[in-house]
Amino acid sequence: MKKNFFIKKKKYILKNIFTVSGCKINRSIFNKKILGINTLKDAASNELTFFNSLRYLQDAKKSKALACVTQEKLKKYLNPKIIPIISENPLIDFYKIVNHFYIDADGDNEEINPINSKKLKVIFDKVFFGRNCLVDKSVKIGKNSKIGNNVIIKKNVSIGRDCLIGSNVIIENAILGDNVIIKSGTLIGQSGFGFKFEKKKRIKFPHIGRVIIESNVQIGSLCTVDRGSLTDTVIGEFTSIDNQVQIAHNVKIGNYCIIAAQSGIAGSTVIGNQSTIGGQSGISGHLRIGNNVKIGGKSGVISDIKDNMVVMGYPAKNIREFVRTR
Amino acid sequence: MKKNFFIKKKKYILKNIFTVSGCKINRSIFNKKILGINTLKDAASNELTFFNSLRYLQDAKKSKALACVTQEKLKKYLNPKIIPIISENPLIDFYKIVNHFYIDADGDNEEINPINSKKLKVIFDKVFFGRNCLVDKSVKIGKNSKIGNNVIIKKNVSIGRDCLIGSNVIIENAILGDNVIIKSGTLIGQSGFGFKFEKKKRIKFPHIGRVIIESNVQIGSLCTVDRGSLTDTVIGEFTSIDNQVQIAHNVKIGNYCIIAAQSGIAGSTVIGNQSTIGGQSGISGHLRIGNNVKIGGKSGVISDIKDNMVVMGYPAKNIREFVRTR
Amino acid sequence: MKKNFFIKKKKYILKNIFTVSGCKINRSIFNKKILGINTLKDAASNELTFFNSLRYLQDAKKSKALACVTQEKLKKYLNPKIIPIISENPLIDFYKIVNHFYIDADGDNEEINPINSKKLKVIFDKVFFGRNCLVDKSVKIGKNSKIGNNVIIKKNVSIGRDCLIGSNVIIENAILGDNVIIKSGTLIGQSGFGFKFEKKKRIKFPHIGRVIIESNVQIGSLCTVDRGSLTDTVIGEFTSIDNQVQIAHNVKIGNYCIIAAQSGIAGSTVIGNQSTIGGQSGISGHLRIGNNVKIGGKSGVISDIKDNMVVMGYPAKNIREFVRTR
Repeated sequence: MKKNFFIKKKKYILKNIFTVSGCKINRSIFNKKILGINTLKDAASNELTFFNSLRYLQDAKKSKALACVTQEKLKKYLNPKIIPIISENPLIDFYKIVNHFYIDADGDNEEINPINSKKLKVIFDKVFFGRNCLVDKSVKIGKNSKIGNNVIIKKNVSIGRDCLIGSNVIIENAILGDNVIIKSGTLIGQSGFGFKFEKKKRIKFPHIGRVIIESNVQIGSLCTVDRGSLTDTVIGEFTSIDNQVQIAHNVKIGNYCIIAAQSGIAGSTVIGNQSTIGGQSGISGHLRIGNNVKIGGKSGVISDIKDNMVVMGYPAKNIREFVRTR
Repeated sequence: MKKNFFIKKKKYILKNIFTVSGCKINRSIFNKKILGINTLKDAASNELTFFNSLRYLQDAKKSKALACVTQEKLKKYLNPKIIPIISENPLIDFYKIVNHFYIDADGDNEEINPINSKKLKVIFDKVFFGRNCLVDKSVKIGKNSKIGNNVIIKKNVSIGRDCLIGSNVIIENAILGDNVIIKSGTLIGQSGFGFKFEKKKRIKFPHIGRVIIESNVQIGSLCTVDRGSLTDTVIGEFTSIDNQVQIAHNVKIGNYCIIAAQSGIAGSTVIGNQSTIGGQSGISGHLRIGNNVKIGGKSGVISDIKDNMVVMGYPAKNIREFVRTR
Repeated sequence: MKKNFFIKKKKYILKNIFTVSGCKINRSIFNKKILGINTLKDAASNELTFFNSLRYLQDAKKSKALACVTQEKLKKYLNPKIIPIISENPLIDFYKIVNHFYIDADGDNEEINPINSKKLKVIFDKVFFGRNCLVDKSVKIGKNSKIGNNVIIKKNVSIGRDCLIGSNVIIENAILGDNVIIKSGTLIGQSGFGFKFEKKKRIKFPHIGRVIIESNVQIGSLCTVDRGSLTDTVIGEFTSIDNQVQIAHNVKIGNYCIIAAQSGIAGSTVIGNQSTIGGQSGISGHLRIGNNVKIGGKSGVISDIKDNMVVMGYPAKNIREFVRTR
């Protein structure tokens, strides 16, 4: 994964981890360099990772990371080539390390180096801009795209061609394909919800992932699509989202899905292709929703759903059962 | 219905329909002129209409339209004076025709020809404006109205007198009566949700209707009120809507209704007068909710409700039954 | 309570009450001065108050107010030292009096006297500001706070140090502690929902309360936090609120609470400390939710909840019962 939105500290060594967290690290390896931070699954051999739950046992065994923040009792499950970094509070220590290693990981950077509005039309001569847009100098926008009024597009955002961006939209830490529609008032790419408290101090969840919006996606008005924590939030091709929908961090939605108004999808849930979600539905975090699933309006989904299922209710169940018990 | 927001193509003839859609049309009538597009019920004798479901059988029999896009098997139900235009995919073909006939029908036009802020106070000398407002030169605003900061009011919008418009509001394709309150961050008159896919291409639902907000209506903050597709979205006199409410396309709400926060009303539903809707309620599309109905908070309404009923639950039922079965 | 946001009319005497409302007042006391308006509980001996329900019997007996708008039949319960002001429609009469006594009580004042953007950085040399901020000349902001783009901060608002305010945020009638996070698009301190109709005229609920956001609070994107009516809306220290949440007028939330996305809390409900509210939950108005309560996602809470309870469902019940009956 290419994370081009968050600046890494250069010359980061294991000693830095020792300094900012409660992790135990042997002085003899203080000078080992860390070039990135990633999930167990995706970490390269010069990256730091994190292992805190047997749910990720298989990933732990196969991980290629250089070092891994973990608990004493989980150490034995790690690929033996990985340097274990033992912590009594792995979650909090890991948050601290990531927030230290990546600048702006734990919040939203409101600084922008906007292109002067007169130059905007020169630089992007094939793009329409409304009034009062704040477009950072690093932004890329494809031809024939139209950008509304009062739009804020922050550092390194990339927007494809033939896109329609409404007014009052904010886009940050995001990559948009071609022919994407984002309607007015929608916010894309902010940091997600999540934190731990330590000694009356809020330790925020790091968010170094992006929002990937594939081509031909449509997102309604006043939606929030948070960026990923370590991985990306992804919305697949041709997926269509109505107004006032909340998509939390790390959510991955397949192609040709339809999500009606005021629905919410909690963190890290994965949805297949061609699934339909009725209005005001809620889907809990960390679930797997299959392909071609139909979720009735106002459903509350609290467990995985297999391909082709039709569910409704709270908690959502097979629609025949829902109708029968009402 | 006076549709003054969408520009019709001039000299539109049946041949154009043949060109942009898959409809079969006999060359002998290629030169028949179409002056508008409308519902079966409202179409005038020079307008095109659409018939795709027996639900509208009575309207089809009585329609005064010049021509009607329909299926081969439904043709026989049409008023015999109407020219049937046969399509294998009437919905998609009709969308294509409307989107071709009316410019901007399938999206939101972010172009604005704003009055210079100094002139704003001269032209509307009886109106208060906050800072950074973008008010199109064609807009009408009645005296003693107050407009907040960063407000966008697009082409041909008309606002009555004594209205209060909050900051960050966007109003387009809408007509507001007198003494209307619209609180900050609310979006009025955008295109609604709806589309079909054809050969991996999104064919968007046309939206050539308006939002009609009658006098003395109050709408809260961060609401979305989508404009109608062929007809209008209407909010009746003295109706009061709280924050974060979604009103979809074609919804018609009577007078003196109260809609509490975070509720949503799906497309084409009609609500009578003096009905009350509790917070976080959802009402499915195409329903008829009577007068003086009371819908308890968080209800999910999936069928019509008669006058004076009190309902609650998901699916919503008579409140006595709801209480008994809990 | 120090209400520094609403300007009181000077030299307000009981005669004024007689003039603007339907209250009966004996001419002999027309010249008694009123210096403020407050709840039964908090009113000082020169303030006017209001008594309309036996629910507040104890407060009525002990109130120290100078005078009280009430019904003929409730008069006997009032502390006999208080001047009873009899009304046939106490609620409507009281609204009229408050809206007359306090300027701007019944709406949101969009007027702002903004600091010139160049001066902004001089006056607040330790504060970061994005572009196009409208910050009233009376506003106070502590050092090291960062304010996003297009932010509106209205009259007399006070923001502590080390705060992070996102873009497109509007803050009015509010006092923020230190280290507060408010994410983009959120609206703080607008007037709440509420009104009565009299002779086809909307009499709006007065809102002369504030929003008090204590230190270390985090509020997500596109939330609405309405200010209080007579008392304040309060969010306690370290409480964390996700995106698209609605907090109505007079709500008081304790410390270290967590409120997940798209939840809504209706007016005057009080929530204790360390309580957790799952996504899309709704809590009715005027309830008392205890400390350390856990409310499952999508719950509809319609009655008080004691300390340490775990509830779920609609209506919300003990979680064991919820699971058993599903």
